[in-house]
Amino acid sequence: MLPGVGVFGTGSTARMLVPLLRGEGFEVRALWGRSEEEARSLAQELGIPFHTSQSDDVLLHPDVDLVCIYISPPLTRQIAVKALGIGKNVVCEKAATAVDAFKMVTAARYYPQLLSIVGNALRFLPAFVAMRQLLAEGYVGELQVCDARVYGPSLLDQSYGWTCEELMGGGGLHTVGSTLVDLLSHLMGARAIRVHGLLRTFVRQNGAIRGIRRVTSDDFCFFQMLMGGSGPGTGSGVCCTVTLNFNMPGAFVHEVMVVGSAGRLIARGTELYGQRNGGNGEELLLGDSEGTGQEVKDVPLPHLRGLGSMVKALKDAFQAQEERRSWARGPVAMASTFEDGLYVQTVVEAVKRSSRSGEWESVEVMTQEPDPNQNLCEALQRNKN
Amino acid sequence: MLPGVGVFGTGSTARMLVPLLRGEGFEVRALWGRSEEEARSLAQELGIPFHTSQSDDVLLHPDVDLVCIYISPPLTRQIAVKALGIGKNVVCEKAATAVDAFKMVTAARYYPQLLSIVGNALRFLPAFVAMRQLLAEGYVGELQVCDARVYGPSLLDQSYGWTCEELMGGGGLHTVGSTLVDLLSHLMGARAIRVHGLLRTFVRQNGAIRGIRRVTSDDFCFFQMLMGGSGPGTGSGVCCTVTLNFNMPGAFVHEVMVVGSAGRLIARGTELYGQRNGGNGEELLLGDSEGTGQEVKDVPLPHLRGLGSMVKALKDAFQAQEERRSWARGPVAMASTFEDGLYVQTVVEAVKRSSRSGEWESVEVMTQEPDPNQNLCEALQRNKN
Repeated sequence: MLPGVGVFGTGSTARMLVPLLRGEGFEVRALWGRSEEEARSLAQELGIPFHTSQSDDVLLHPDVDLVCIYISPPLTRQIAVKALGIGKNVVCEKAATAVDAFKMVTAARYYPQLLSIVGNALRFLPAFVAMRQLLAEGYVGELQVCDARVYGPSLLDQSYGWTCEELMGGGGLHTVGSTLVDLLSHLMGARAIRVHGLLRTFVRQNGAIRGIRRVTSDDFCFFQMLMGGSGPGTGSGVCCTVTLNFNMPGAFVHEVMVVGSAGRLIARGTELYGQRNGGNGEELLLGDSEGTGQEVKDVPLPHLRGLGSMVKALKDAFQAQEERRSWARGPVAMASTFEDGLYVQTVVEAVKRSSRSGEWESVEVMTQEPDPNQNLCEALQRNKN
Repeated sequence: MLPGVGVFGTGSTARMLVPLLRGEGFEVRALWGRSEEEARSLAQELGIPFHTSQSDDVLLHPDVDLVCIYISPPLTRQIAVKALGIGKNVVCEKAATAVDAFKMVTAARYYPQLLSIVGNALRFLPAFVAMRQLLAEGYVGELQVCDARVYGPSLLDQSYGWTCEELMGGGGLHTVGSTLVDLLSHLMGARAIRVHGLLRTFVRQNGAIRGIRRVTSDDFCFFQMLMGGSGPGTGSGVCCTVTLNFNMPGAFVHEVMVVGSAGRLIARGTELYGQRNGGNGEELLLGDSEGTGQEVKDVPLPHLRGLGSMVKALKDAFQAQEERRSWARGPVAMASTFEDGLYVQTVVEAVKRSSRSGEWESVEVMTQEPDPNQNLCEALQRNKN
């Protein structure tokens, strides 16, 4: 039995998600927006019966059993943790900081019977599902190098907001880089142990952001991850390089390439190509029959397609259950957990640290919540420099 | 009046160069090979009247006034310096070390009337000539980022030799990376002040290199350069990223992209594309009418085409002169000087240092020859670690 859904957010992803959910048979019961006006406007447009700007109104809504949270990163932790506390299943976007991500992990561990996933849609994209399978089957031989690139137009919102602010989770590294960090660890079965990176903000002001306001979030980011792991076949010792450039209006390049001793696999957009050493050139391993030209404004095709596959997996997880809130683990086993979310956030912060220090930084996933005063001291310290 | 040419080397570049020289009207008078047999074999194949394995026989040959040196890096310095001392014009490949490059600079400064260029053919490739022109004209606006990638099959020779040895100038960074370091500084009119890099050797042995022999030169390399410079319009403050991967049999990717505030330029292989922000997508700015499918084994198309343009420029430099050894500076003004060669070698060594230290390393071009004992001490020191 499919649960009723409450959606948090009125941005482009939320707007995309609602028809996808309905397409799979979910009923969207409630919508939350930052302001009453934003909520009303989108609810009317999409025909959602209930809208509000009070988060509790959605969380406590009796017909809502699954909560999808696609809002600004600083608000995510609070709503996700509260939803779990109320006994609702949660699919959400990444948090703003590792401390927030840690609090989400704590809540998820406390309610293991509830669904709690970080909705990185790339994991569900058929091209990456196939790539992971082929990697496990040894298509590329021993993995050596992974190279991911995303180029596109500016990620900034029309008006000043969290997308402009590094500390609020804005920027290419946090928004797009984090999905790649998650994806690569998923594909390889290995995690980064050391990272090195460089962040730049080339566009500090534009037509909409001017006066005393300046963008602090990165529009160019470049990082390397040295992967750890255990045993052969995993990505242990592999070097990953990621290049993100969001100063390229009119372009959208999304390419992930893994190179090994026996061949390579390349996902370009939503399609997968492969080449074995000594073979007859590149072969198309998985096409995208729905073709191009379907790019939706602000949502790149790989994310849109992945989102569709993720919603299908959610349907499969809930469908055969008798209880509205119970779910089967199998169909969503490939999803990113809150633990994965904490790892990703840790890598993101290590890359930022590396960009400041100029050195390789090690990735140490938090095992207990830091003293908040300690945190404050560090922030003050940093501001002094 | 075109000078007689003596060619050093029997490898793929030398083999390509001879017909190009003849096509422009140069007479190739003498060929040097490492062994008598190699020299005889290629001289017969190409119909060169004189061949030898004694370098002096070419350098002192009365009909040779221009010497082209395309041999293993550790031998380059010795022959180039001697050629200048005998009063011959020199076009050569890069040296093996910064110390060698410095000795070449000293010789070039001592004989300023002689031609002394490091034959980086990429500078002459029409796509890069046009890119440099468009950058100067402000096509991309304020330069932000430069991203260069070269992917291809293994650079190792069939048998064990200098290509396998890092200390002899083998490896992707030294062989291909150096041409990009040179090209980027030429395009931007700026030099790297700090670099960060990572080198890997994934293939340590193969069918031809086995037993106690192991490859020490890199087949994967990844580096960043922060550019210095003066004034607007130059590449000051720009970040360049270079990715080299020579574990990709069957592929050849040669891409240089520069991104600025107003648009971008991309050289793919031998063709140049551009896109201005707000424009109607990418435009082909310079095609290559000779088309593809002309890839010559071991010599990538951009290098082959560049070599052709460089030889044309050499003809233009010598043609109108009455003396066989005199030349006009104009046509070869864009060539890489021995000073540029020293800068490039300094960057290459800084990237290697960074790969060992894990830190950003500054690029400090040598201004006096180091004490050879000092050098020895450092080598011993390094071997101890």
